[in-house]
Amino acid sequence: MSHSAAENLQKNPQSPAFLTATEALARLRTRELTAEALTLACLAQVKERDPLVKAWSFIDPEHVLAQARELDRIAANGNMGPLHGLPIGIKDVILTEDMPTQYNSQIYQGFHPRIDAACVSILRAAGALIFGKADTVEFAAAGGRKALTHNPRDLERTPGASSSGSAAAVADFHVPLALGTQTGGSMIRPASFCGAYAIKPTWNLVNRDGAKVYAVSLDTIGWFGRSVADLALLYEVFVPEKVSVAPLDLSKARIAICRSPVWDKADPATKNALATASQKLKAAGAQVIDLELPSPFEKLVALQYLIMRTEGGSAFLAEYRKHYEQLHQSFRDHVDNTDGTTRDQLRRAYDISAECRARFDEIAAGFDAILTPSAVGEAPVGLAFTGDYVFNAMWTLLHVPCVNIPCFNGPNGLPVGLTVTGPRFSDPQVLVAAEALSALFLGAA
Amino acid sequence: MSHSAAENLQKNPQSPAFLTATEALARLRTRELTAEALTLACLAQVKERDPLVKAWSFIDPEHVLAQARELDRIAANGNMGPLHGLPIGIKDVILTEDMPTQYNSQIYQGFHPRIDAACVSILRAAGALIFGKADTVEFAAAGGRKALTHNPRDLERTPGASSSGSAAAVADFHVPLALGTQTGGSMIRPASFCGAYAIKPTWNLVNRDGAKVYAVSLDTIGWFGRSVADLALLYEVFVPEKVSVAPLDLSKARIAICRSPVWDKADPATKNALATASQKLKAAGAQVIDLELPSPFEKLVALQYLIMRTEGGSAFLAEYRKHYEQLHQSFRDHVDNTDGTTRDQLRRAYDISAECRARFDEIAAGFDAILTPSAVGEAPVGLAFTGDYVFNAMWTLLHVPCVNIPCFNGPNGLPVGLTVTGPRFSDPQVLVAAEALSALFLGAA
Repeated sequence: MSHSAAENLQKNPQSPAFLTATEALARLRTRELTAEALTLACLAQVKERDPLVKAWSFIDPEHVLAQARELDRIAANGNMGPLHGLPIGIKDVILTEDMPTQYNSQIYQGFHPRIDAACVSILRAAGALIFGKADTVEFAAAGGRKALTHNPRDLERTPGASSSGSAAAVADFHVPLALGTQTGGSMIRPASFCGAYAIKPTWNLVNRDGAKVYAVSLDTIGWFGRSVADLALLYEVFVPEKVSVAPLDLSKARIAICRSPVWDKADPATKNALATASQKLKAAGAQVIDLELPSPFEKLVALQYLIMRTEGGSAFLAEYRKHYEQLHQSFRDHVDNTDGTTRDQLRRAYDISAECRARFDEIAAGFDAILTPSAVGEAPVGLAFTGDYVFNAMWTLLHVPCVNIPCFNGPNGLPVGLTVTGPRFSDPQVLVAAEALSALFLGAA
Repeated sequence: MSHSAAENLQKNPQSPAFLTATEALARLRTRELTAEALTLACLAQVKERDPLVKAWSFIDPEHVLAQARELDRIAANGNMGPLHGLPIGIKDVILTEDMPTQYNSQIYQGFHPRIDAACVSILRAAGALIFGKADTVEFAAAGGRKALTHNPRDLERTPGASSSGSAAAVADFHVPLALGTQTGGSMIRPASFCGAYAIKPTWNLVNRDGAKVYAVSLDTIGWFGRSVADLALLYEVFVPEKVSVAPLDLSKARIAICRSPVWDKADPATKNALATASQKLKAAGAQVIDLELPSPFEKLVALQYLIMRTEGGSAFLAEYRKHYEQLHQSFRDHVDNTDGTTRDQLRRAYDISAECRARFDEIAAGFDAILTPSAVGEAPVGLAFTGDYVFNAMWTLLHVPCVNIPCFNGPNGLPVGLTVTGPRFSDPQVLVAAEALSALFLGAA
């Protein structure tokens, strides 16, 4: 077994597993590459690497290959969807009709309802190949069983959570794309730790039907890829509106650097990444502005937690009543409201959040993009602690699009991501800005 | 076949089908009544009446009786849940592992994934008997196929929509309780038309997982019963917090009468109901205050529609892509955004709604209850038009609890309901107020 994906790439540089989704799609379109060949390469990478990385909770290679051959047959007839033949991993809190959905919960071992989540259904209609179920923190919620997944960049470290398997699988070249979910920091933090690109779109832009509910007013479907173009590819499938955004000319751009109200939590690795980003932007001719958010934005991290925990109380009530003994203490605590949150506190949390959403959109409208930390720093050592999501909580609560760009490294050579964000529904603009920023940061690296 | 439930009641007054849930539960607890006997009575009522009313899209009598016998066996062992043995109907947009879920859609004929919605799972854990699937408007959404259901009070008239079957089944004594959903006026309007009690709780208080998504920021699970006590019975199962609310003394109460910004849409029947309610309240010694909501509340009816249609665009994308030919034009229009709603309009709609939620809670805090119309008037003649939900839209958007009390009749002797409402999360207080108001209005009727 190779010790790292990089070594595997050296051994077998021609493997299509190492293509980005966009690169692979171009070859699939010309039939230079078949879905079967791509899938075989992905399965080979899984076989080589997953005994170490443990990104997957379920893969049926025979079923995956049968899907690939069927997609090739359809392609031979000239019918290709916009994702035709691309293998996509699915976080195991999202329902798939042809595979179990087990939520990393004892209660749901072998659970296999015959229904696709809406997002999976949309992927299939676009010709994507549903590759397998990626491991997750129990119910994708704070406090449950951790995924078995290791960080593919350093197996001694956490991949982050809760979309642990999805982030690791994409970063480690098992699949070019994977779906995840974010309620606190479950997309952007593991993307930062594993060195993947990821988007958490504007809240409720992608249909959440069939993804396990944790906190309805926060839960968001997102996805991981290995380039901004790959993120945009899925975005266009999920959000059909036609929006044309001109490429961002950084020499004329106004970029805000938002240290955020929790800057004192940042490791030097993150502080350095943001400082380097700022320098490179200035060198490229961009106008760089420090953005300090006004009161009451400093309350939002605590309010995200309050809302998540309180809404989680109704989310886990069914399991609490039916499977109390098998339910992790953390979820019992959600239902029992051990935090003692009152309805008035919840109401106030909703109202302050809503007020800040409107204010943030006004503030953000003054910039071409906002750059902010994705995580405290490099991935922590060990699997017990999946890292703090404190740099993600506010943005999730604000409902704004967030894209992680994995363009920096910390003192241990491990990825340190930055988040590109903007107003609600500016996802196309944020993706375009992320493309320009990513090119700048990597090009000059 | 009896022409009406009332005739059937005269023929067979001892049938336990005519008990409220609370009355039936008392007898089930003492084992004076078995779940099997209650279920047989409900099935007999269905057999008698449903050929005319058509409330159900699926019932398997054998399976229902098997459940009843199993619940009786469990009860004999001394294990009774808080709803033990009570038959409950489920709107056919909510997943049930032992019955198909067909959404009244051609696409989903025979669709039967093996999974319970969270709310169904909670009911089962409480000992309820899942009786069958109640007919619905296609996807519970504006513009689709209508339910086949007739109004049990006048078969020539609509039962209202979209929870058509659930409302009719409860009003017509097929089951004591049924679940529905509301995104616009899909609980309160059919409750008003059929003469049932109903609650649409505060948004997101009951886990919506497993109910088909229409518009996430509006969709709410609710239920129908034949008394306020019956509504409270289910509320306590779904919302475990302990809240003790003293009975409302109407002679000391401050009750607001809110004609609402769409008062000019009200028929004389509704105007009379509200005027009579006001007189009776004054006669009972209550302080009755006309509540006129300030600007921008007059915008909320239009904003509810805008949000529902726009969020619906992502809700139906999967069907649009996979089953375009079988998808009703109305849902294609949602996806195609034929209204031409912009993202800025949606954002603004979210922000104005949020602002009004906070303001409404402040305003409503000054009253013991707010009374407002449930519908334009009596149920319209025919099944093609299911009635206007204009009197429900604002309250759904405000996320507040709404209880329909069916205490008045129109010129044709058909039910005209009123809505009792209050601030977000005041559901227990609204139920207590509805109990007092309902007793007053019926007692003096």
